[in-house]
Amino acid sequence: MILMEKGATKEQIKDVVDEIKKHGLRADVLQGDFLTIIGLIGDERKISFSNLALMPGVKEVIAVEIPYKLISRDYSKQFIAKEKSRIVKVGDVLIGGDEPVIMAGPCAVESKEQIFRIAKEVKAAGAKILRGGIYKPRSSVHSFQGLGSRGEAEAREALQWLRAAGHQYGMPVMTEVRGEAQTELVAEYVDIMQIGARNMYDQDLLSRVGKTGKPVLLKRHFGASVEEFLSFSEYIIAEGNKDVILCERGIVPVGKGNSYTRYILDLGAVPVIKNETYLPIIVDPSHAAGRRDLIFDLSCAAIAGGAHGLVIETHYNPKEAIVDAKQMITPDELKDVIDASLRISRIVNDYRKKSS
Amino acid sequence: MILMEKGATKEQIKDVVDEIKKHGLRADVLQGDFLTIIGLIGDERKISFSNLALMPGVKEVIAVEIPYKLISRDYSKQFIAKEKSRIVKVGDVLIGGDEPVIMAGPCAVESKEQIFRIAKEVKAAGAKILRGGIYKPRSSVHSFQGLGSRGEAEAREALQWLRAAGHQYGMPVMTEVRGEAQTELVAEYVDIMQIGARNMYDQDLLSRVGKTGKPVLLKRHFGASVEEFLSFSEYIIAEGNKDVILCERGIVPVGKGNSYTRYILDLGAVPVIKNETYLPIIVDPSHAAGRRDLIFDLSCAAIAGGAHGLVIETHYNPKEAIVDAKQMITPDELKDVIDASLRISRIVNDYRKKSS
Amino acid sequence: MILMEKGATKEQIKDVVDEIKKHGLRADVLQGDFLTIIGLIGDERKISFSNLALMPGVKEVIAVEIPYKLISRDYSKQFIAKEKSRIVKVGDVLIGGDEPVIMAGPCAVESKEQIFRIAKEVKAAGAKILRGGIYKPRSSVHSFQGLGSRGEAEAREALQWLRAAGHQYGMPVMTEVRGEAQTELVAEYVDIMQIGARNMYDQDLLSRVGKTGKPVLLKRHFGASVEEFLSFSEYIIAEGNKDVILCERGIVPVGKGNSYTRYILDLGAVPVIKNETYLPIIVDPSHAAGRRDLIFDLSCAAIAGGAHGLVIETHYNPKEAIVDAKQMITPDELKDVIDASLRISRIVNDYRKKSS
Amino acid sequence: MILMEKGATKEQIKDVVDEIKKHGLRADVLQGDFLTIIGLIGDERKISFSNLALMPGVKEVIAVEIPYKLISRDYSKQFIAKEKSRIVKVGDVLIGGDEPVIMAGPCAVESKEQIFRIAKEVKAAGAKILRGGIYKPRSSVHSFQGLGSRGEAEAREALQWLRAAGHQYGMPVMTEVRGEAQTELVAEYVDIMQIGARNMYDQDLLSRVGKTGKPVLLKRHFGASVEEFLSFSEYIIAEGNKDVILCERGIVPVGKGNSYTRYILDLGAVPVIKNETYLPIIVDPSHAAGRRDLIFDLSCAAIAGGAHGLVIETHYNPKEAIVDAKQMITPDELKDVIDASLRISRIVNDYRKKSS
Repeated sequence: MILMEKGATKEQIKDVVDEIKKHGLRADVLQGDFLTIIGLIGDERKISFSNLALMPGVKEVIAVEIPYKLISRDYSKQFIAKEKSRIVKVGDVLIGGDEPVIMAGPCAVESKEQIFRIAKEVKAAGAKILRGGIYKPRSSVHSFQGLGSRGEAEAREALQWLRAAGHQYGMPVMTEVRGEAQTELVAEYVDIMQIGARNMYDQDLLSRVGKTGKPVLLKRHFGASVEEFLSFSEYIIAEGNKDVILCERGIVPVGKGNSYTRYILDLGAVPVIKNETYLPIIVDPSHAAGRRDLIFDLSCAAIAGGAHGLVIETHYNPKEAIVDAKQMITPDELKDVIDASLRISRIVNDYRKKSS
Repeated sequence: MILMEKGATKEQIKDVVDEIKKHGLRADVLQGDFLTIIGLIGDERKISFSNLALMPGVKEVIAVEIPYKLISRDYSKQFIAKEKSRIVKVGDVLIGGDEPVIMAGPCAVESKEQIFRIAKEVKAAGAKILRGGIYKPRSSVHSFQGLGSRGEAEAREALQWLRAAGHQYGMPVMTEVRGEAQTELVAEYVDIMQIGARNMYDQDLLSRVGKTGKPVLLKRHFGASVEEFLSFSEYIIAEGNKDVILCERGIVPVGKGNSYTRYILDLGAVPVIKNETYLPIIVDPSHAAGRRDLIFDLSCAAIAGGAHGLVIETHYNPKEAIVDAKQMITPDELKDVIDASLRISRIVNDYRKKSS
Repeated sequence: MILMEKGATKEQIKDVVDEIKKHGLRADVLQGDFLTIIGLIGDERKISFSNLALMPGVKEVIAVEIPYKLISRDYSKQFIAKEKSRIVKVGDVLIGGDEPVIMAGPCAVESKEQIFRIAKEVKAAGAKILRGGIYKPRSSVHSFQGLGSRGEAEAREALQWLRAAGHQYGMPVMTEVRGEAQTELVAEYVDIMQIGARNMYDQDLLSRVGKTGKPVLLKRHFGASVEEFLSFSEYIIAEGNKDVILCERGIVPVGKGNSYTRYILDLGAVPVIKNETYLPIIVDPSHAAGRRDLIFDLSCAAIAGGAHGLVIETHYNPKEAIVDAKQMITPDELKDVIDASLRISRIVNDYRKKSS
Repeated sequence: MILMEKGATKEQIKDVVDEIKKHGLRADVLQGDFLTIIGLIGDERKISFSNLALMPGVKEVIAVEIPYKLISRDYSKQFIAKEKSRIVKVGDVLIGGDEPVIMAGPCAVESKEQIFRIAKEVKAAGAKILRGGIYKPRSSVHSFQGLGSRGEAEAREALQWLRAAGHQYGMPVMTEVRGEAQTELVAEYVDIMQIGARNMYDQDLLSRVGKTGKPVLLKRHFGASVEEFLSFSEYIIAEGNKDVILCERGIVPVGKGNSYTRYILDLGAVPVIKNETYLPIIVDPSHAAGRRDLIFDLSCAAIAGGAHGLVIETHYNPKEAIVDAKQMITPDELKDVIDASLRISRIVNDYRKKSS
């Protein structure tokens, strides 16, 4: 991290950036009110810090020890007054502000009729973003892998349905990119690129998706600590794409015997992540619980704990669904979740503003 | 489990109970509106089920497969209409009903002045039960183990302070029993006997505390599944003591790197336990987080998720405290937690009643 | 899974295979001594099982419930006498037989001189396969990602060094494929394609690597159960590539406080996997321990527990290494590991043969 | 920790010890060849370190930061040349030396005939210590809890059988103390007091068992880190009882899906504990695996990894056993385990001596 002199000229800044690029790294220029800092992105062994320190206009070269620098609240707070919390704008929807944003839709897009009907009903229930899987990550090669896995033509058709359904009912759309080769195709059609929990550690996928410039929703892997989660999110940021939405969806259960939920939802991660970074953090209760009767309770808990939103699997007839039938709720149930969430959010926001 | 004939006489019931006792087991007689069932408690290998089935008045002998029978909602639902959810009454305080009950106090009782001052201030903030540690479970033999560990006289004095402080400000009191030998002494002074997370697997302690007949708050071990937690709670119930309050306080973190909280609070366990059993379930955010800045968020989340109450470490000057200084909040902060909890509780109760 | 009649003709078999392919699935034909079975690979919802049952030559259509069918010992045992344990042949090296195979080399290939010197020294110590990282998976975008991440030319050059070093000292070579886009390039140069623990859940990568037809070493993810590990390995097998070598390298530590190792090596997985599947299973003690002083002990333990081999990070001067300096051992230490391993292996093989 | 002057007199040492005791702590006097150090045991807040530093003969008062001081190799190494590894002597059996010690016997003592027959057969197979449960820790109150739970008379009778069987066949005996109230009764009859995994955190039980002066085998809790395990073992040491044998028996499985073993045996803990402390560490493969077909493999792995011994559940007819039928092996199988263990141990000892 290079702290420039107060009166550093544009040319001096450019020279430093060029020097950094020459060595195969990227530079992240942050213009503050009084200061300019240049973050180094990439393998820092390739460049000499002492040479950088000698360049004109450079005040100091500072080594930052935390594994995630780019998204750290401390890192930004130290130098720049303005950057507080990042609000990711997707169409008219603001993610990361006071009002929680609910994303809803079926686990998998199965047909045009299905996605249009669900879009209509979740919109009426209050959802702001439409989600639906085209490429499904599955534990078994013998299971349904989503329409997208049947070939490019089928993928393109399903993506068109999703986009059209969102357009018709005024919602930006989100789907998962499961493999690198799907990246550009998906980016043509959707507003938010989702990276699933299983791919959180897949740094090449993160970089490639980051390069599209589209907002990215990154789910925490079920075996990852919060530190690892934040550290991997930087692979997206490092591509110059700061529109990253983090998503907690449960970690692996521990212990002998039945936990009665598929994963353990770690709601403590929500305030922790808000404290550590400026990125929005939302919660996926559907995959954490794996059963529909807990969605209301876990959704309310997530919002009361400070989550910026929820992503909830919804279907007009869950039993009919090919995948995740057990954990989807109906649009009617979704309406209660959204209503209660908004009311709870207002209460906790009052107290939070008072104390800050 | 023995299902008696509709017209079974009192004598027939008594004969079955006597037969059970003769073989060294205990009997739990549940009188329903139409039916009587007799639960067997203890090692079922000692008695012949087919002999029992032949006794006069016995309709059927049913084997129940779940490891926890006595507290199972299914087990009670099947035969008895009236037993819904158990409300544990402690003085005037009802635990398990619609309104969440907040228990508060210092980690450790340190002096008469300290506990009286805290009692006064948490009462003013809205707390209903006063808690304070006399015997502290500690990882290191080199740490402060609570006043109780200094000898019986010191233990008795600290217990008297705690009781007197509760009495003065109209709150029942709770403290932890860490070892079997402390059981009867503690039972002389307190209204709720707490068994800490580290002792959850200590079946001899559970039985002995259960025998006192006092309400028991049992914390989930940080390495235990929900199934194990429920199964061990039956060691208390099996002593004929149904006043058991369960408490979720976090499970061990998983994964490489920092989770930023001491434990992972498993709020999914709250609705799961309400679904599986008729016992009240409360949440301890203080030990789960291990840091005071998360207490508000986790408390609101717990109540929104349906918890029947909270137990929160509180101190007028946390920095002064010998133990757990980092995780205690002030009475002023407690007031916000309680106010927000009550407001959130009312919202979620509305929706829950509507849907049930 | 389709069981054909004893006298089923080649044409009948072909018809069934064609029918399966027509519906977008693949067919795995297993010719036994007396029986032919055809395994279905892919989403089984796309095809009618009852129609298949009616085709000429089909005796029975059997649904298999375990999530991994293709690699299951039970599945193969049931019908085919010959398929016992799979021995993966790489050049002259046999992996999966009686004698454990040791793979060794640096964490990362850093220069031509480095890899040639290490190749020479590990060969002298008794290693059979040369390993070295070109693309390094790293938690932080700010760390060295391997020479391969600097561009295709650098990747190709490093791959050439690795292959040449292996050729010079008579060892097949192995390197990790971290992202899909690297697959074909890596396949040009190496004998075994490694998929790292972090990518175990990346089904698109597994399929693409499987398609190359090269032997694949798949590491278990640190958050994966054995069941998940086996289930994901089938994404490779489903491409018709049965040369899969499984590798246990430790799971995430559980609990508060220091475990003193980076991961927990699950050696129970070794005999379990040998029991469940016919695939070879080897152990990586270097990444599990994260410290060189445990490598000897964990290596001996792995071999005594029945592992078919070891992969051990080795460097002539560990302190000089850019990555994983703490966990690499020297070629001298490697020699002791290999000698002890071979001696232990002979002892345990004697007992195992006696009891089987 | 108080370091005395080289020429400190006995009286000066006594004065320091008295001062420590006056404040309610205990003192651990270690007489080295050249130096005397006095360890403080108990709550260090009760005493002024600066006052101690001013006492005659005191050279320095040193604060030690690791949570376990008494058993730390570093702590003893620093000052005393002689204390290397502790060998626990039980009758003629040496635990902690070069030769691994095998402890065997049934899960539960069920009858006089049963324990005598097993004693005879495990002795013939090469076992050195006879184990058998009188008080069984069980997850369900509805399961068999051991003969000891039926009353004191039954407990005493079963303890007599166990002792007599050991005496008859020349083996010291071991049984588990599950609750504090059982301590003195058990100590009357057995040579090694076992504390089970579930009670590892029960500090009052540890202290009380430590006070008996008998050797104690302490099992690691399945949710405990190595650091916690070592820290809790000090509750025994702090009673002046250094005859502590540590036992690794598996930690809770992590992840979705089947791990195929009841617990994950953490064999990395074996060399780690040997490095951190001077206490012997043995392994219990029976409870870790929960299935008999893995006992041979895990036993060999444990010994190859450096364990000082094994404790293995053995029964002449496992199917007959009331508890743990699935995981007991026969005396014939035990013989193979012991023979292979001794042979493997000799190999690895050769290499270890060479390198140290």
